[in-house]
Amino acid sequence: MHPPAVILSRPQLGENIGAAARAMKNFGLSDLRLVSPRDDWPNEKATAMATGALDIVERARVFDDLRSALADLNWVYATTGRARGVTKPVLTPSAAGERLRQASLLGEKCGILFGNERSGLDNDEVSLADAVITVPTAEFSSLNLAQAVLLIGYESFRAGNPTRPVRLDHGPLARKATRQELFLFFDHLESELVRAGFLYPPDMKPPMIRNLRALFNRAELTDQEVRTLRGVIAALVKGKRWPAED
Amino acid sequence: MHPPAVILSRPQLGENIGAAARAMKNFGLSDLRLVSPRDDWPNEKATAMATGALDIVERARVFDDLRSALADLNWVYATTGRARGVTKPVLTPSAAGERLRQASLLGEKCGILFGNERSGLDNDEVSLADAVITVPTAEFSSLNLAQAVLLIGYESFRAGNPTRPVRLDHGPLARKATRQELFLFFDHLESELVRAGFLYPPDMKPPMIRNLRALFNRAELTDQEVRTLRGVIAALVKGKRWPAED
Repeated sequence: MHPPAVILSRPQLGENIGAAARAMKNFGLSDLRLVSPRDDWPNEKATAMATGALDIVERARVFDDLRSALADLNWVYATTGRARGVTKPVLTPSAAGERLRQASLLGEKCGILFGNERSGLDNDEVSLADAVITVPTAEFSSLNLAQAVLLIGYESFRAGNPTRPVRLDHGPLARKATRQELFLFFDHLESELVRAGFLYPPDMKPPMIRNLRALFNRAELTDQEVRTLRGVIAALVKGKRWPAED
Repeated sequence: MHPPAVILSRPQLGENIGAAARAMKNFGLSDLRLVSPRDDWPNEKATAMATGALDIVERARVFDDLRSALADLNWVYATTGRARGVTKPVLTPSAAGERLRQASLLGEKCGILFGNERSGLDNDEVSLADAVITVPTAEFSSLNLAQAVLLIGYESFRAGNPTRPVRLDHGPLARKATRQELFLFFDHLESELVRAGFLYPPDMKPPMIRNLRALFNRAELTDQEVRTLRGVIAALVKGKRWPAED
């Protein structure tokens, strides 16, 4: 499986190439291709900016023309800020991320094409791509090159990433409490509240108990937290006597 | 409907505050709150960096402590790079974007909390939030402050954005061809191919025609493109005589 290549057409500043390389590395992209970079290559400023992603900058390949840079790819998506005159499918980054993922699962090679910092891609460059990716933005739209690489890289990574959308993060020592641990905690809390006269009048007791249980269920307690809460109850019950009487 | 506030806790460099403001503006966020910025405020470097998003920087509010900055919010999501010791729900940016969107549709005020450039949020700061947002990345993870604001802002914008995942973009003058226009084009092409002896032998004619139709259907032609292709066929048919005989 190949992650997509990133092709920068006529990039100007080494700093931006270095920043693009770092953005790529966050999302597991490594194949960087430069088409006619304006300044010398290798480039010191790119190297300085790439800290941590130096391997990507060092292995970047330089091409004289865009056709050669794209030649081995099966799919090419061109990133543009606004609609162009040409009739092309326009994808959101998230739809493109899905397609890139599906293609690379089939062993097809993909590339994402970015224009230069000043003027983006020209119509001729776009005409060599299958489709266009445009990032939906508010009226104000000013993404720099590395930010564009970051967002598209993020979406291509997200499409194949198994991270659960919502998960409860606790260290390796804690685990979600069992029902039995929770039930004993509920019993403890409720018996102390009866003794303290809080669950009164008696007809209000069942709904109050259900509300308290709901609140603690929502918190998705760990075993350690159940123990802590039982300590909290015990401390509150005898707390009035401290330090004077204990 | 309130778009979420962005709260920067103890930010250090004005440049990063300005860059965060620009990232915000791309995605329609405008409520910027600064908690104890290290350098003076207002800050020249923030202003210089914010080009285009100056209004956000100028209206940014400064707070002495994090509690005051969060006080009016119903929901707070803290962004952190890696898991912490505390048991909290951890959301992907996309899940958080959905929740922020749902909450703001209900008129609830939301905030996204970012730590400082050097060390991120400390455990005490995280303890004031409902949940944590972590950007899934490859092993290498180095998002700067403005990039983190950009990605979370992108996801909060994306959740409410109606842009079609894939659309065919053509100018206002073109439109998708009608079936009748396509059928006349198919007829034109097929009759010229019969005359040219291309659809031969006869038993191959139906599958070849179907394949050609499929190819042109997949291209989702506009009315203008159908006219262009009919011109192409006509030119090819008589082209052999040009320029010598015409």
